[in-house]
Amino acid sequence: MTEMDTRERQVLDRIERARRRRPVVKDERVTLAHGAGGKATHTLIEAVFVDAFRNPALEAMEDGATLDVAGGRAVFTTDSFVVSPLFFPGGDIGDLAVNGTVNDLAVCGARPKYLSAGFVLEEGLPVDDLRRIVASMAAAAEAAGVAIVTGDTKVVQRGKGDGCYVITAGIGVLERDVSLGTATVRPGDAVLVSGPIGEHGVTIMLARGELDIEASLTSDTAPLHEPVSALLDAVPGGVRVLRDATRGGVATVLNEIADASGFGIVVDEAAVPVRPMVTGACELLGIDPLYVACEGRFVAVVDGDQADTALDALRAHPLGADAALVGRIKDDPPGIVLLKTAFGGTRIVDMLVGDPLPRIC
Amino acid sequence: MTEMDTRERQVLDRIERARRRRPVVKDERVTLAHGAGGKATHTLIEAVFVDAFRNPALEAMEDGATLDVAGGRAVFTTDSFVVSPLFFPGGDIGDLAVNGTVNDLAVCGARPKYLSAGFVLEEGLPVDDLRRIVASMAAAAEAAGVAIVTGDTKVVQRGKGDGCYVITAGIGVLERDVSLGTATVRPGDAVLVSGPIGEHGVTIMLARGELDIEASLTSDTAPLHEPVSALLDAVPGGVRVLRDATRGGVATVLNEIADASGFGIVVDEAAVPVRPMVTGACELLGIDPLYVACEGRFVAVVDGDQADTALDALRAHPLGADAALVGRIKDDPPGIVLLKTAFGGTRIVDMLVGDPLPRIC
Repeated sequence: MTEMDTRERQVLDRIERARRRRPVVKDERVTLAHGAGGKATHTLIEAVFVDAFRNPALEAMEDGATLDVAGGRAVFTTDSFVVSPLFFPGGDIGDLAVNGTVNDLAVCGARPKYLSAGFVLEEGLPVDDLRRIVASMAAAAEAAGVAIVTGDTKVVQRGKGDGCYVITAGIGVLERDVSLGTATVRPGDAVLVSGPIGEHGVTIMLARGELDIEASLTSDTAPLHEPVSALLDAVPGGVRVLRDATRGGVATVLNEIADASGFGIVVDEAAVPVRPMVTGACELLGIDPLYVACEGRFVAVVDGDQADTALDALRAHPLGADAALVGRIKDDPPGIVLLKTAFGGTRIVDMLVGDPLPRIC
Repeated sequence: MTEMDTRERQVLDRIERARRRRPVVKDERVTLAHGAGGKATHTLIEAVFVDAFRNPALEAMEDGATLDVAGGRAVFTTDSFVVSPLFFPGGDIGDLAVNGTVNDLAVCGARPKYLSAGFVLEEGLPVDDLRRIVASMAAAAEAAGVAIVTGDTKVVQRGKGDGCYVITAGIGVLERDVSLGTATVRPGDAVLVSGPIGEHGVTIMLARGELDIEASLTSDTAPLHEPVSALLDAVPGGVRVLRDATRGGVATVLNEIADASGFGIVVDEAAVPVRPMVTGACELLGIDPLYVACEGRFVAVVDGDQADTALDALRAHPLGADAALVGRIKDDPPGIVLLKTAFGGTRIVDMLVGDPLPRIC
């Protein structure tokens, strides 16, 4: 039967093709088919994601990754990244997405272990751009000692996205017996920042060409688990709260802590580390560096008596070399952050209102 | 000093305001400020998300949720949702996002426990729409017995998104000693589907107004952990693979299983449960129901000798009432899915190519 012959030939051809296959994405741009869950999606996943993130949990290609969570106490977090532009001096949306979730886990006192990665891609995104982003995620994951174990990709039509959004979730394990949280804060505690602030936000503004100035600034995007570990080791029981200072900047983190603890925070403006280029750019933009996002800095509230030990430990790590004691927790004014300005005055530092720097992360 | 009086008054006012505060979102539409990490973000989170998802891990309002993962073996998964329209008969992007991740955990054999929720909102989204979505997520989470313990919100400018994208990640615990995976599939195994296929996809197409027909179809979106549990309890050791049939439909799932196991799958078209309205709509659209997404149906490969017991167990649950045995695993043709058509012919069912139904989930 000719019909059967044709079918048999088709079957044999299909098998031969499958045997030879090593998935390759031939398209130059992302198409809606890449998000359809079919052949193009599979090729994209195998050729781009699995190839970059390679690990047994991910390669099992099941709907979820099976993990060993030793000890039983885990921390779970998620963060969405919509930064524009996708690539900027010092990083891109990929390492930002990995470091951001690693840092959320680190400031909860956990050792970051597993990440998921979701992608919302706009039709037309150059596949080479996606490759760069994914490569950067793989490198950041390796640097932070985490495995990207599960993921998902969707594609939206042109004009319904902006190239690439990346959403990471993360699991970390609590290996230390830490008890961090705003409820542990008390008057006399010291407020530290781990390094110069505002570099990420200002770098993004400059990368957008919104300021006609040349500057050699780079984003501070970095994984913070090591300096956090160093701090927790140096003053066990002495760390009250850790927060990475992303959107809304240090001012917003301090307001969150003041608001939740009910205590006041008095900050010495002169003690806050800010690079001159950041100060200058902020003056031109009419914004306060205290509100500008960092992606590799954190705020720590520590026992006031152990502040020097804490600072020494931070400064011993490259990512904490310029750490500084910037303020103190006070009884008054309750729930308020006050800044002692360089000119001897005092002003309230409120939480960020509006968005001077949209899509900074 | 008048200056001090003014400052003191400001401080006292601020404290009074903070005391009185119960966060309320006054805006009718989402603005970029809602994604800025500042005041508007906090208000949105407290008034909309925390209020809806209320649980101790989330209410701690730290950067991540601390969880007890009893037993130590966990499953981790993520899924992004870009469905258009946001609301459709039988559901919306909110319950879809919760059920989707619950189902990914369930088909890995895990009991779904914790979810994260990331939102990428487009400036201009009506806040009431967001409330509806969030309320629907909360209801779906309660129905599935999971807690949404951590989240994140970003806002992009008009024209850089499409109302609302929701990205969920989930953690489940493996309480059973199951060993699911395509490596366990063997010839003679039976292939089951848990109910009529294609209803979600066709419902979305109709909701878009792309077909000028009236139909009372609703999405099949549902949490599958209970029928999956019933199946695993009924034939312990007899379940090889479970997959929920979302994007790409049943045909894509079968191809994944055939491809990964190296065995063939022969499907009896007449045995595949499809509601007449789905068949009719698919004919008009020129698509095959086998490729249409379900959001509350799964494919199970089970030991051929235990197929009847497995079917009985599924049919005893409302979500599996129309479960059917649709095919068998065969030695030949290796890696290929063959369909025995209602007319006695045979054709290859390939993986989905292109995207006939973009943004179905």
